Amino acid sequence: MIKAPYLLFLGDAPDQLSAKVGQGIKDWRPERAVGQFRMPGCVADLGLPDMSLNEARSAGAKTLVIGVANRGGVISPEWKKTLIMALEEGFDLASGLHNLLRDEPDLVAVANATGHALHDVRVPHVPYPIAKGTKRSGKRCLTVGTDCSVGKMYTTLAMEREFRKRGLAATFRATGQTGILIDGVGVPLDAVVADFMAGSVEWLTPDNDDDHWDLLEGQGSLFHISYSGVTMALIHGGQPDALVLCHEPTRGHMRGLPDYGLPSLEALHELALRLARVANPACDATGIAINTAALAESEAQAYLKEVEGRMGLPTVDPFRHGVERLVDALTER
Amino acid sequence: MIKAPYLLFLGDAPDQLSAKVGQGIKDWRPERAVGQFRMPGCVADLGLPDMSLNEARSAGAKTLVIGVANRGGVISPEWKKTLIMALEEGFDLASGLHNLLRDEPDLVAVANATGHALHDVRVPHVPYPIAKGTKRSGKRCLTVGTDCSVGKMYTTLAMEREFRKRGLAATFRATGQTGILIDGVGVPLDAVVADFMAGSVEWLTPDNDDDHWDLLEGQGSLFHISYSGVTMALIHGGQPDALVLCHEPTRGHMRGLPDYGLPSLEALHELALRLARVANPACDATGIAINTAALAESEAQAYLKEVEGRMGLPTVDPFRHGVERLVDALTER
Repeated sequence: MIKAPYLLFLGDAPDQLSAKVGQGIKDWRPERAVGQFRMPGCVADLGLPDMSLNEARSAGAKTLVIGVANRGGVISPEWKKTLIMALEEGFDLASGLHNLLRDEPDLVAVANATGHALHDVRVPHVPYPIAKGTKRSGKRCLTVGTDCSVGKMYTTLAMEREFRKRGLAATFRATGQTGILIDGVGVPLDAVVADFMAGSVEWLTPDNDDDHWDLLEGQGSLFHISYSGVTMALIHGGQPDALVLCHEPTRGHMRGLPDYGLPSLEALHELALRLARVANPACDATGIAINTAALAESEAQAYLKEVEGRMGLPTVDPFRHGVERLVDALTER
Repeated sequence: MIKAPYLLFLGDAPDQLSAKVGQGIKDWRPERAVGQFRMPGCVADLGLPDMSLNEARSAGAKTLVIGVANRGGVISPEWKKTLIMALEEGFDLASGLHNLLRDEPDLVAVANATGHALHDVRVPHVPYPIAKGTKRSGKRCLTVGTDCSVGKMYTTLAMEREFRKRGLAATFRATGQTGILIDGVGVPLDAVVADFMAGSVEWLTPDNDDDHWDLLEGQGSLFHISYSGVTMALIHGGQPDALVLCHEPTRGHMRGLPDYGLPSLEALHELALRLARVANPACDATGIAINTAALAESEAQAYLKEVEGRMGLPTVDPFRHGVERLVDALTER
């Protein structure tokens, strides 16, 4: 568990998009983000108070979270200065970068000397068990996509917020580095050793109250040949009661795979449900989340209506229109 | 690649079954096994010449392969003496044990001092890529099971032998530790990090001659919730042209999962084929391998006939009746 609240490190971010981890934390866990730390040349702005390390410590910040992608696969000397100073000033560090903090000898030395933690959220730190498949108490909803990067994390977080708004018990369960940094805890599933993937998902979504929903962040796609094994482990380890199907309607081919077209929502529905019912025969698909960012509002409305008519499931764009109907479908079960 | 030929270390094996790795090597790669090394109390016997380390070196042996399971999760002091002596006498060591050779400081020290290798085949040693999904040349056949441990490795190795007997080009591709020790090379798929599973299978089955068959050892089962992600990576990374369905007809529940019944062969056929066609639309199921060890010969014959009539695919017990018909189905494609 990463200690909150955070100071969000934006470094010398060349654009707003490169700070999307920081943006995610600010959007979904604003109570954890006391401020932002920007270096000269930083173009990104999360609309948080700019703070020095000292000011952030005074405001209660406990962890400096790297909320920006780095360039060129290295942690630059300029970044390094701030990271070391942060350890010395009393911060833990947290990062989802491919370059691990723990692989930087100077950071390790200062962390050891100061007694502060280096959190590399891409690296599992738990000895996950082999999945047992035993039926667990509580309820679980998993987002599954026709492709990678179609809005599964966003949809899952939005559903958690809607549950909480209604005073209902629900927990976002992060399975990727951005989700883990947002929530402070989770399983970096793509970095888990094959034999323990499904077990790590079981570990992440344990027995719970009967009326509690675990909202499990999906990864990859059953139809994405590079990552389908990860998706499978989520479906079987998560033993979901409900699936929310996620789709981006304008994509020409599977992400990173020019030779592979996207499956239909019908194909995803049928396949994901069949696989989910191996672990939980009571599973149903309960809704559809469409990322219509590439469509005009009228096109988006027409598309959602068409899909809803065709699939017979509540169909929304979570970003544009909210997830009330997706949550209704869960609470009415 | 583990250097052949081998001296097979059987230690103090308490029974024949505990030496099944050694038995597999002797059965499938007899040309690699110059002899067996047995300690006092060893009950297993592979029918190979008993040799001292010296005698085996004189007979050309280059690697001492641990062909036996260990007890109690430790490498005993008695074993250790022989392993250290083997390194000193000029052997490499190879092991598929859960306890890694590399975690034993004395073995590491002697290996470093003598310049000999410690092969822990459970541990990947290649930086596998992310799967690309590009169509590869050559042909591939994958064994898929209704459950774990239903004869996938045996069937795959038997098909390779039959191909070679006919003078046809085929290569067994090992994906588990026993298969790797038998063949000297392969991918320990259950120990590969999730993101790289399918990529490791692509790496294992690269472009090849148009008439060459890669015979890819299956793992797990799409219906085994603990390991289904691994199976999925094999189906998508292997982009098989042909699937051979494997089944054990008397099993009451999925291996290690008392609450889960076995799927029908029809369910396996339909699901595996649908998933395989994401990566290779030309894939077909071409045969069925049944492990009838628990049935009397007449029962086995009746069962095979019944399945063949029902499924419309050549159906054999590879151990009892050979795999000629499974190979016919591949060569006739």
